Amino acid sequence: MYKHTTDGLRTLLNIPDNYQIFFLSSATEIWERIIQNCVEHTSFHCVNGSFSKRFYEFSGELGKKAFKEEAAFGKGFYPEKFEIPAETEAICLTQNETSSGVSMPVADINKIREKNKEALLFVDAVSSLPYPEFDFTKIDSTFFSVQKCFGLPAGLGVWILNDRVIEKAKQLEAKKVLTGTYHTISSILSKAKDNQTPETPNVWNIFLLGKVIEDMNKKGIATIRKETEVKADMLYNYIKDSNNFSFGVEDPAHRSKTTIVANTAIPAPEVNKKLEQFDLAVGSGYSSYKEKQIRIANFPAYSVEKTEELVNALKKTIG
Amino acid sequence: MYKHTTDGLRTLLNIPDNYQIFFLSSATEIWERIIQNCVEHTSFHCVNGSFSKRFYEFSGELGKKAFKEEAAFGKGFYPEKFEIPAETEAICLTQNETSSGVSMPVADINKIREKNKEALLFVDAVSSLPYPEFDFTKIDSTFFSVQKCFGLPAGLGVWILNDRVIEKAKQLEAKKVLTGTYHTISSILSKAKDNQTPETPNVWNIFLLGKVIEDMNKKGIATIRKETEVKADMLYNYIKDSNNFSFGVEDPAHRSKTTIVANTAIPAPEVNKKLEQFDLAVGSGYSSYKEKQIRIANFPAYSVEKTEELVNALKKTIG
Repeated sequence: MYKHTTDGLRTLLNIPDNYQIFFLSSATEIWERIIQNCVEHTSFHCVNGSFSKRFYEFSGELGKKAFKEEAAFGKGFYPEKFEIPAETEAICLTQNETSSGVSMPVADINKIREKNKEALLFVDAVSSLPYPEFDFTKIDSTFFSVQKCFGLPAGLGVWILNDRVIEKAKQLEAKKVLTGTYHTISSILSKAKDNQTPETPNVWNIFLLGKVIEDMNKKGIATIRKETEVKADMLYNYIKDSNNFSFGVEDPAHRSKTTIVANTAIPAPEVNKKLEQFDLAVGSGYSSYKEKQIRIANFPAYSVEKTEELVNALKKTIG
Repeated sequence: MYKHTTDGLRTLLNIPDNYQIFFLSSATEIWERIIQNCVEHTSFHCVNGSFSKRFYEFSGELGKKAFKEEAAFGKGFYPEKFEIPAETEAICLTQNETSSGVSMPVADINKIREKNKEALLFVDAVSSLPYPEFDFTKIDSTFFSVQKCFGLPAGLGVWILNDRVIEKAKQLEAKKVLTGTYHTISSILSKAKDNQTPETPNVWNIFLLGKVIEDMNKKGIATIRKETEVKADMLYNYIKDSNNFSFGVEDPAHRSKTTIVANTAIPAPEVNKKLEQFDLAVGSGYSSYKEKQIRIANFPAYSVEKTEELVNALKKTIG
């Protein structure tokens, strides 16, 4: 099961041989293990929403020094506008902020790497993979959760990491930095070599993820990515023309293709009340934006036809 | 779902109100969180097999001083025969060693507590709960995994802990001891109050555990415990009379009711070959005992009739 799932994922995302694939219990756990295993003193974080903020906070909670570049909710980052301190050991980017729908273009991630070649680069792609086509020569690690684009019940985080990350973890262990117990990188790696885990994992989800990936590979990643863009265009075009909705993310370059966020004049629960007759629903805004925004999960599980149906229903009842 | 599952478990195990129920990803994770959250300097462990040994090792790996009382594989502990250092903050007992089938009687756990009232007492009951009837006034915490007696796929650890444990974790936090991030006791507790978790948990297993517990409560815990004893007696009586099998655990008081272990003259894989015709199988021994021992999971999912069937098949083909 382990091998079937990781082999399938290697094909789907075109992951090079010098990358390992680990199963953890959530992306939240992966944040913790990254800081524990790969940061002796200093991490750097781009913070523009609840999830990137939590990743940043973890570093401090684990006794490390965490730098941050902040952007307001709904705003993204411009690589040429900030500097990362030279002492940084780990750069932590959130490719897709699930809370605000702000996304970081792959080209910008690559620019950040070009300017900062020493530090390890970690990319949180919890709610966007398999959509973004990463250049794996420009990032050291990425990770995602199965309950977003892979459409499964929560409870599994998938961590993709290269030999540089493993080497850094080994250095920290050699220095007797406390890196954890069963989920140190070396402990997970020693089991992963035999397609096993150090603890009893979420076997059910590992199995199901393998099946979902099998389906995705049959469809082909190019088609999945193309369809994601077609559906995102349909939704954003509707928002642009709507009298009720407006873009949650101003800069078009930063608008997520998988997490479509719009400001709404009518409170979000009322939007859903109007959609009930069509047996359709959208997500509410995150936290304090609960009523003021809607979020539409543009995941591979939803077809182009289903998205068209949603747009038509919104046009009809809300305009 | 969270509330349904925890309410059911409270009824099933008769858990007092001053105990909380937390969902973690595995019992292995619970070992780590216990040491991180409740031990500033010193823990004490009874070690007599692979699992209790791993719990002991975690303490050292997290930079704490770990004392141990050791017994050989297949042997148990006698509370009057060892002393626990007065400085111990956490006493860690493995009520049921899944590797060797050695169990610690509840009465002995209570004796250990009587002699050591200050330290927190943690009881690993991964592969025995809901069978043991703990006196909750004599232990501070216990925990189990869902893939043993509850018959579910792995991926969920359930942690039961009282106000003394929570108080200790608060003290450590106040002292700025590094206790973790999302799975510090205070972080889990703040979410548990609203029947939530700090991360996206294994929702599927929380739901299914609720259903299994519902069934168990319908049957009644007294019946489940009685049946467990009846089935264990059947299996141990067979082992006593067998020409091929002998007791893996010498002292009858230490023989587990849920993990029946026997030495076998015929290698374990051959035992299973002979059982194939009946569509039955037993577990192999743990690690280096793989061929030399068999392990029979005497869990509530197996009926008295099924156990009788197994005993008859063993008698017929092996004797």
